[in-house]
Amino acid sequence: MPELRKDPIVDRWVIIAKERGQRPHDFKPEPASPGSGFCPFCSGHEGKTPAEVWAIRENGSAPNSEGWQVRVVPNKFPALAIEGGLDRQGLGMFDMMNGVGAHEVIVETPNHDWKVGDATEEELSKVLWAYRERLLDLQKDLRFRYCLVFRNYGQAAGASLAHPHSQLIAIAITPKRVKEELNAARDWYLEKERCIFCDVLRQELAMRDRVVLENDHFAVLSPFASRFPFEVNILPKRHSHDFTTMTDQESVSLARTLRETMKRIEVTLQDPPYNYVLHTAPNAGATAGPPRADRWTTLECDFHWHIEIVPRLTKIAGFEWGTGFYINPVAPEQSTRFLQEAIIVEEETPTLSHPR
Amino acid sequence: MPELRKDPIVDRWVIIAKERGQRPHDFKPEPASPGSGFCPFCSGHEGKTPAEVWAIRENGSAPNSEGWQVRVVPNKFPALAIEGGLDRQGLGMFDMMNGVGAHEVIVETPNHDWKVGDATEEELSKVLWAYRERLLDLQKDLRFRYCLVFRNYGQAAGASLAHPHSQLIAIAITPKRVKEELNAARDWYLEKERCIFCDVLRQELAMRDRVVLENDHFAVLSPFASRFPFEVNILPKRHSHDFTTMTDQESVSLARTLRETMKRIEVTLQDPPYNYVLHTAPNAGATAGPPRADRWTTLECDFHWHIEIVPRLTKIAGFEWGTGFYINPVAPEQSTRFLQEAIIVEEETPTLSHPR
Repeated sequence: MPELRKDPIVDRWVIIAKERGQRPHDFKPEPASPGSGFCPFCSGHEGKTPAEVWAIRENGSAPNSEGWQVRVVPNKFPALAIEGGLDRQGLGMFDMMNGVGAHEVIVETPNHDWKVGDATEEELSKVLWAYRERLLDLQKDLRFRYCLVFRNYGQAAGASLAHPHSQLIAIAITPKRVKEELNAARDWYLEKERCIFCDVLRQELAMRDRVVLENDHFAVLSPFASRFPFEVNILPKRHSHDFTTMTDQESVSLARTLRETMKRIEVTLQDPPYNYVLHTAPNAGATAGPPRADRWTTLECDFHWHIEIVPRLTKIAGFEWGTGFYINPVAPEQSTRFLQEAIIVEEETPTLSHPR
Repeated sequence: MPELRKDPIVDRWVIIAKERGQRPHDFKPEPASPGSGFCPFCSGHEGKTPAEVWAIRENGSAPNSEGWQVRVVPNKFPALAIEGGLDRQGLGMFDMMNGVGAHEVIVETPNHDWKVGDATEEELSKVLWAYRERLLDLQKDLRFRYCLVFRNYGQAAGASLAHPHSQLIAIAITPKRVKEELNAARDWYLEKERCIFCDVLRQELAMRDRVVLENDHFAVLSPFASRFPFEVNILPKRHSHDFTTMTDQESVSLARTLRETMKRIEVTLQDPPYNYVLHTAPNAGATAGPPRADRWTTLECDFHWHIEIVPRLTKIAGFEWGTGFYINPVAPEQSTRFLQEAIIVEEETPTLSHPR
């Protein structure tokens, strides 16, 4: 069973996934081209993954056979175990519990060479639908306080397989950085009775210096204090704490916004490795833990879901990880301009200002 | 002038070093062997760096000429500017100030191929002496709240030059992660009247599961909730909040401890890239800012300096940077055993238990 351990000084939980049993010589420089061999995520190789937990199959094909469009399977090397109780315990001054959780892979398409920036609206909508359905399903498990959706693209961003996929982790804690956002947003709301993300949106849409693109439903912003070059956030313009409450119209709009954002990044930076992470509200139903400490009640007013996208252009050096203090060599106003000026040939949708 | 910008939601300052003026095409995949050409840090090339600010020269040689043993120069591409006022200002709801600070390079030896694990005690003692002297000198500048010493080794750890060197950054803010440690240690002390780091040391030295090595003055521990495989911390066994207050005997002992630790990492993990960062007390004399908010007073009792060492074996993926929640595939008890069992040929000092 993997363990969750809490640092006794800083309020940070870590997964110790010792079942992976890596030994010193396992940490070798990686091969130049990841996934250049056999791909377990390609159509026809369904037997090479754990049995699927969810899929979009419009042609009546059987589970774990060909004919799917999006397919969700448990991670073959999960960092967490799905069965078992939390079994919280102290070890002297240290806190730990069982590494209980879900670790799933969302295979976004049967097409090995598909890219988000070249996808159709329909394809990307199906990926977003998978995110939503898996979030709603996993949040029924009241052991899980937080469900985290993220995408690693490219070897430098931590992707071990080249086939297009996202991942989902459901865990019994709220991650540290998400909790900091939740607490800061709550404190702001308690003082001002306004959402801090809505305030940022209003100021940025008025100033225009860091708006990469904007449409009826979404804004793509370069954060004022960007940690990394060309970092951008996608925020819904309508206040909403929970990704799963998106309307169908908003979901189509998000698919288009995500595609255009990724296309601009791809063109401007020559198809860079990147990560994106969805920050949505914690699991409102989770019963574990004190009501306020982990903030799983009354988030509707003060949290605002968003997607953080970070192209991996610079190496994170000792200075950064050791201090939480980042050096960014590109001002967000500059990166905004470069992304705005990226030339994109749009086949079907000439502008995003008026989504259908 | 570089800028310091504060994220309006999370309490995190970022250096926007836009003077570096990087454009999208500057972010290319890097060459396989860094620093394979001309080395500005080698003896004889003193004219290729900014003028030295400090050096150990025992033979009466002139500044900026050959004959040095350790040499400190300003970074040629500094992330901060040394001249100017902080000029704090708000931009709507955003906070910013001038990126005033020092960014120095400590060239540790004239020998291009020197390694910490193979150094003599005398050589490493001189590097530690340089750290101490530069910290004491920069802390006289009361604009600087925090001075950060760190070492990047290997390209994957962010080193852009192969020649052995550390870096020092002096800034007008206390970095986020250091501040979290300071605040947590203060809260623990207010409750228990004990240093939390001393409590961790006592428990670890009693349990022995995560003690990589121990001598009269220092303990090398794998943190209970290690974020990264083979992460270790060096802590002084005597409670002390400030690196610069080390005695001469402790300094020699630290040189030996650091050498042995790095040698064990080098042997166990086949000379991996790594970072280390010194966490010492903030600048007690700094006058900027409210007395408690940034914790620059009365740290003597509750903070405990230490060095954090992280071999860079895994890629930090989207999950980690997006959440502050880490997956570590090696339990710290396992990595401790591997490091303990590393075979090291010690030429002069067969054991570290009884430093001379």
